[in-house]
Amino acid sequence: MKIWEKGIAVDKKIEQFTVGHDRELDLYLAKFDVQASKAQANMLAKVGLLNEAENQQLQQGLSELAAEIEAGTFTIGEEFEDVHSKIEYYLTEKFGDAGKKIHTARSRNDQVLTAIQLFIKDYTERTAARMVALTEVLLQKAEAHQNDLLPGYTHFQAAMPSSFGLWFSAYAEHLLLDLALFEAAHTVADQNPLGSGAGFGSSFPIDREMTTREMGFGSVAVSSVGAQMLRGKTEKTLAFAIAGAAGTLGKLAYDLVMYNSQDLGFVTLPKEFTTGSSIMPHKKNPDVFELVRGHTNRLQALPNDIILATSNLPSGYHRDFQLLKELLFGPMMQFSDLLDMLLFALPEIKIKPGVIEQEKYDPIFSVENINQLIIAGVPFRDAYQQVGRAVEDGSYVPHRAFQTTHLGSIHNLGLAKIAEKVQALKNRSALLR
Amino acid sequence: MKIWEKGIAVDKKIEQFTVGHDRELDLYLAKFDVQASKAQANMLAKVGLLNEAENQQLQQGLSELAAEIEAGTFTIGEEFEDVHSKIEYYLTEKFGDAGKKIHTARSRNDQVLTAIQLFIKDYTERTAARMVALTEVLLQKAEAHQNDLLPGYTHFQAAMPSSFGLWFSAYAEHLLLDLALFEAAHTVADQNPLGSGAGFGSSFPIDREMTTREMGFGSVAVSSVGAQMLRGKTEKTLAFAIAGAAGTLGKLAYDLVMYNSQDLGFVTLPKEFTTGSSIMPHKKNPDVFELVRGHTNRLQALPNDIILATSNLPSGYHRDFQLLKELLFGPMMQFSDLLDMLLFALPEIKIKPGVIEQEKYDPIFSVENINQLIIAGVPFRDAYQQVGRAVEDGSYVPHRAFQTTHLGSIHNLGLAKIAEKVQALKNRSALLR
Amino acid sequence: MKIWEKGIAVDKKIEQFTVGHDRELDLYLAKFDVQASKAQANMLAKVGLLNEAENQQLQQGLSELAAEIEAGTFTIGEEFEDVHSKIEYYLTEKFGDAGKKIHTARSRNDQVLTAIQLFIKDYTERTAARMVALTEVLLQKAEAHQNDLLPGYTHFQAAMPSSFGLWFSAYAEHLLLDLALFEAAHTVADQNPLGSGAGFGSSFPIDREMTTREMGFGSVAVSSVGAQMLRGKTEKTLAFAIAGAAGTLGKLAYDLVMYNSQDLGFVTLPKEFTTGSSIMPHKKNPDVFELVRGHTNRLQALPNDIILATSNLPSGYHRDFQLLKELLFGPMMQFSDLLDMLLFALPEIKIKPGVIEQEKYDPIFSVENINQLIIAGVPFRDAYQQVGRAVEDGSYVPHRAFQTTHLGSIHNLGLAKIAEKVQALKNRSALLR
Amino acid sequence: MKIWEKGIAVDKKIEQFTVGHDRELDLYLAKFDVQASKAQANMLAKVGLLNEAENQQLQQGLSELAAEIEAGTFTIGEEFEDVHSKIEYYLTEKFGDAGKKIHTARSRNDQVLTAIQLFIKDYTERTAARMVALTEVLLQKAEAHQNDLLPGYTHFQAAMPSSFGLWFSAYAEHLLLDLALFEAAHTVADQNPLGSGAGFGSSFPIDREMTTREMGFGSVAVSSVGAQMLRGKTEKTLAFAIAGAAGTLGKLAYDLVMYNSQDLGFVTLPKEFTTGSSIMPHKKNPDVFELVRGHTNRLQALPNDIILATSNLPSGYHRDFQLLKELLFGPMMQFSDLLDMLLFALPEIKIKPGVIEQEKYDPIFSVENINQLIIAGVPFRDAYQQVGRAVEDGSYVPHRAFQTTHLGSIHNLGLAKIAEKVQALKNRSALLR
Repeated sequence: MKIWEKGIAVDKKIEQFTVGHDRELDLYLAKFDVQASKAQANMLAKVGLLNEAENQQLQQGLSELAAEIEAGTFTIGEEFEDVHSKIEYYLTEKFGDAGKKIHTARSRNDQVLTAIQLFIKDYTERTAARMVALTEVLLQKAEAHQNDLLPGYTHFQAAMPSSFGLWFSAYAEHLLLDLALFEAAHTVADQNPLGSGAGFGSSFPIDREMTTREMGFGSVAVSSVGAQMLRGKTEKTLAFAIAGAAGTLGKLAYDLVMYNSQDLGFVTLPKEFTTGSSIMPHKKNPDVFELVRGHTNRLQALPNDIILATSNLPSGYHRDFQLLKELLFGPMMQFSDLLDMLLFALPEIKIKPGVIEQEKYDPIFSVENINQLIIAGVPFRDAYQQVGRAVEDGSYVPHRAFQTTHLGSIHNLGLAKIAEKVQALKNRSALLR
Repeated sequence: MKIWEKGIAVDKKIEQFTVGHDRELDLYLAKFDVQASKAQANMLAKVGLLNEAENQQLQQGLSELAAEIEAGTFTIGEEFEDVHSKIEYYLTEKFGDAGKKIHTARSRNDQVLTAIQLFIKDYTERTAARMVALTEVLLQKAEAHQNDLLPGYTHFQAAMPSSFGLWFSAYAEHLLLDLALFEAAHTVADQNPLGSGAGFGSSFPIDREMTTREMGFGSVAVSSVGAQMLRGKTEKTLAFAIAGAAGTLGKLAYDLVMYNSQDLGFVTLPKEFTTGSSIMPHKKNPDVFELVRGHTNRLQALPNDIILATSNLPSGYHRDFQLLKELLFGPMMQFSDLLDMLLFALPEIKIKPGVIEQEKYDPIFSVENINQLIIAGVPFRDAYQQVGRAVEDGSYVPHRAFQTTHLGSIHNLGLAKIAEKVQALKNRSALLR
Repeated sequence: MKIWEKGIAVDKKIEQFTVGHDRELDLYLAKFDVQASKAQANMLAKVGLLNEAENQQLQQGLSELAAEIEAGTFTIGEEFEDVHSKIEYYLTEKFGDAGKKIHTARSRNDQVLTAIQLFIKDYTERTAARMVALTEVLLQKAEAHQNDLLPGYTHFQAAMPSSFGLWFSAYAEHLLLDLALFEAAHTVADQNPLGSGAGFGSSFPIDREMTTREMGFGSVAVSSVGAQMLRGKTEKTLAFAIAGAAGTLGKLAYDLVMYNSQDLGFVTLPKEFTTGSSIMPHKKNPDVFELVRGHTNRLQALPNDIILATSNLPSGYHRDFQLLKELLFGPMMQFSDLLDMLLFALPEIKIKPGVIEQEKYDPIFSVENINQLIIAGVPFRDAYQQVGRAVEDGSYVPHRAFQTTHLGSIHNLGLAKIAEKVQALKNRSALLR
Repeated sequence: MKIWEKGIAVDKKIEQFTVGHDRELDLYLAKFDVQASKAQANMLAKVGLLNEAENQQLQQGLSELAAEIEAGTFTIGEEFEDVHSKIEYYLTEKFGDAGKKIHTARSRNDQVLTAIQLFIKDYTERTAARMVALTEVLLQKAEAHQNDLLPGYTHFQAAMPSSFGLWFSAYAEHLLLDLALFEAAHTVADQNPLGSGAGFGSSFPIDREMTTREMGFGSVAVSSVGAQMLRGKTEKTLAFAIAGAAGTLGKLAYDLVMYNSQDLGFVTLPKEFTTGSSIMPHKKNPDVFELVRGHTNRLQALPNDIILATSNLPSGYHRDFQLLKELLFGPMMQFSDLLDMLLFALPEIKIKPGVIEQEKYDPIFSVENINQLIIAGVPFRDAYQQVGRAVEDGSYVPHRAFQTTHLGSIHNLGLAKIAEKVQALKNRSALLR
């Protein structure tokens, strides 16, 4: 059943092409379409476009569907082009006229959009919670390894003494920063488009503020034209958020791939996280983290995929937007999987103690030698020249004993300060209620 | 003068290659490097790494430079590789040892990063103010044209009655949503990296919270490793924000290009905004808005440019990051120019009244015919079938008189509601102090 | 069975993560892995690393598998991580030692790479044939509609007289140009990497030129390090080719979406190619062509997806490359489907004759008025000014009768010339044997 | 002077916005616009639209301009919007009516397009020559270092013995493969659009095959609509070619950055190619190669920049295309600079001999131990298990003496075979005449 059917046979091949993967993808939306339809029916009843008996039927039917979805038994058969047809058909079969009235003052455009808004809003909240959990794992690792030094690298070269405490807490702090983009995505998804119809509103006396409250949206997408323009924008904003966090996770994975190499050897990955080679029995490749890195690159391509799909189109709905579900939903799930994998993997990483003791890391203490001269009163530039000459002529002896005091340095990680940032975010943001 | 010079001659060609466009680009940073150097010197004096006299010299020298920058007379000569060398050289020439000490407990990495953070933070604030101003222009136009109807298009087809009120207010509301990404960029830029040195901190007893307060940063980028990881992330977050808003402006421009075409003819662009053809004297091409659209596409490519430049690199500084200035600063200015152009152009657009009266737009009132049947008690699906048949058999007569009441519809634009959103944002956000 | 198994249990979750979608995606490669394994076995027999009986067993077993693949009955069970494990297991179960020897002087790296090279080479050939077929459809339409004029648009404005002959033949010519990128992809895919092992060759006395001939490759990827570097490059080059042609098809679809609008009305799409609206019974939306356009945007994002996945990695295999199959194979099939859809749809498009006769198109003949003056001896710039003034003051009368003679103009389409280009390409290119 | 000027004052601000950077960018096109104008004038004379005297004047004036351009004294003043206006103005000032006639049967669209086609065609030829030169440098280095072994890495882990011979020749071979995309770009740029006017041809009896021969184009872009569609396609195809080669150079640079690190230490970069740290005197950072890598990432973003600028636009000229010059010309020059830098830098790289002798590389010979067992008759899988166990239990003794024989292996680099590929390409391709 296609709801726009007017008795014209549509070639099967074209139908497959136009329906695409909608039936699978719409399973993600089913729960939210039911939620929105309940709010819609309640509102139609309130403004008199449904009578009370009709609304009770619809609420009951929708609750049955919600239970099926919750139980995982809900499916969308081949006779339906999407979840919305399926739900409307179910209600019409069961209740006749009441079912036929559910689409009053609603268009497919605002209906789909509302379900997507609810789905993405829910996703940002769930994902933010996972990211906060990962932050907490990282802070625990930072505390546990605050005394485990490692050489800090710049330009792929050992540069200065660093520590696992600094390293783990760096990623904790960055995941928190990445949540700023998720807040933006949440803000955009938190607008209620229901009632905007095909993008130009309608002459029905509907109450959009009532549906906004019923669905728990933060505000109404006021202009009906603007409401429709959310299509693509919400997806894009979420894509930015995912790409931002993916960049952070990709860097973490890259570090681990290198720290695991024989040349550096700063960490040991449990055997479960490595795989072998089909011809080299000595290899224990860090495949899990290479795949994490690979997936984060795929996720960093996502904003561009969405931008290309939505750029250079005037306002108003275009069928091109249907493909956004296909572009976005898979990567959304992939990103959740990555977070799960890291929540599972990070606690298992073993740090190799004492790596910095190796003689090959002598030169990275040169900055400390300079600092000693400065504390003795030599201006920075002169001290720098003096130690530079010692390095060149071989007379350099590393000053390996050093103590740092400033916030964010090896011996003063400021973990409590970072934990305060977590708490401040929880207090402030609707994302982390 | 290159500050890392150790007496080794570096081939001229290579120097040009490595310096790149830094001298020009660094002019944007000069003001902020001076601001950060003042905070640095004050802090060094407080913790005893400078004496008071030295600090007074440095403050005076830096104030002189600030005045030059403000006056537009500051330049970076070919003898300097960047603004930072120039400033340090100026102080050293003038004050000797005091100048040599300014770089104590600071590395080029955190120095550049701090200047970029301040620059981008400032930019987000200035840009947000421009975007709010544009929002207000759009709301004024929406109010002025609330009774000017136009056909609403979907799928490039006339679909339903719409209005310039809905259209202008849609873009106002979307620019407000776009500010959510600028808030994210502001949050990331509002972290103070100063004191993180080359990315691993130092053994100097510096006070990072003091410099944070002095420069007006919202918080400290605590972990020194994490502070360094801001390089690329702040730029990327800003790129997301610019690309998001560019998408909105591009759609606005696209609409205007089409509304200006002979086929639609919904708006008249002043002659100043159009150009002619070298061979077709009848043409008045909407070049300004085509160029706006073109530039917004270029700006929408920006996130990907930044991502490619920063992806797949482990933590720690890499020289690749130097190119971020080149990638980002030009487009930042371009985006400001676009906002200025639209602030200038939008008030000049003339709406053609009565376009919807044309007979060719009869069919777009079919939804109203359906609604009349529904109000008379016919279920939606039956009404839809009935009007569909009338359209097919030619018996359809458009119901052109209609009245809307719901929030965000033609006759109830809810402009006050949108204005409240502007005010709420101003109240809430550090971006719009 | 994982062939690198050394008795260490690998956590189930991680296995799923690392295997990913390989089992499904590898079905595309099965045929080519069998082909390469046959060549490998023949070569091993020739150089004495297999005896003749062993080779006969392997050839027979591989032929059985080839038959299964051809018949569509071949599957890869959950007990195998990929197609390569499955094939080796099958041979080992069946023939014991002979099966164990098939992987001699071969690594998983060159094995996978060889299958991908063969698969992509085959794909470029099949796709090129489809594109040539589409070219021929377009040339037929151009010939059939050489006398059907339509207004030519620039800047979304009617500009000058054009024709469907020019329009159809333009796309024919561009598809031919797009084949230049497919030739490049074919050249890169036509290099044989087999024998390069893990990317550094081996000490076995193998004959790489023999396998090159057996598999029909155009040349050997000589350096073993370079052979391994094909991973990612072949995929990227194909992505460029697909994106290039997708750009052409997207423009074609965009034109059709606009030509189908009520405002232009230059073509009629058969009802099968349009869909309705859930609330607007008068709409016949050009969904098929909007979806074609949407898909072409997705395909134009492909090069960037691949670049991000492969950029900033040093030489040598990285597990990230496994994800290339996932990134590429879906879009490859999608592009084939688009070509099929257009081969099916384009012949069905109906041209509306006489559209250019409408009075609203009077101005587009102004260039003809200028040309008349030029032929009468007025210099171009003066004629241009004169007609420009007539347009401004309303005295302009369009010169609707005109005749063109030059190659590529309305009355001299040069279709034979374009057909010659098709033939020249067929003569020249290995892509179109 | 704007040639479409019809007495309407255009606001200064808008003029700047619409002209953009055209004056600077057009300097690249000046030479080619002169070349095309000469062909145009000759053709107009032949078909009788100019008399012989007029043509002689124009040829002389254009030759003068060509000499100025060659001498570097040609400029485009602020009174001209672009190079084309300047040239036409020069001819008109000097010769009156003859100058006014040069634009007969030509539009700004085909004029600009023709100059861009000639410019890009010329660029592909010059660049291909540079790439071949770089290939030859790499082959020389491969030959010189064929006996210098280094550990081959996969997964950032030392895997197997490799050699600088294999490594250098790999990049030589890949640059040759990258030329396949330059051939595609050359093919697209080798189409003559002159005479297609604004994209719909004209009624003048021009001879497009004559101008094709005069300018040395390989063929006519026949359909006038198709000719105009080259705008964007030629740029995009070149962007693909540049991005493809940039990917190769980026990998080369990445390898060198890592090979230069203290941990690997396989190469020494001359001091001229490294820079120091502002605080760490022991550092010699490989900045030149990091910047090469950074620039190659920027160049790999180029296709997407162009695609976004050109996607989702119907056929026909749009002003957005003007920005393509800005997007493309800078990166074109950047890519030339990168090739120059590498032609200069690669001969200077010093290989550290004997690095593979270090004990830490013992494990990478495990494949050789397996091969010894295989040659002794043990099936591959059994040999693999046996050596695997030895590695696990510590009884493994590396088989460091080995000899390879196959094409593309350490002791049989097949450099002559690669040189043959260079020669074959020279013989075959119009790109490398």
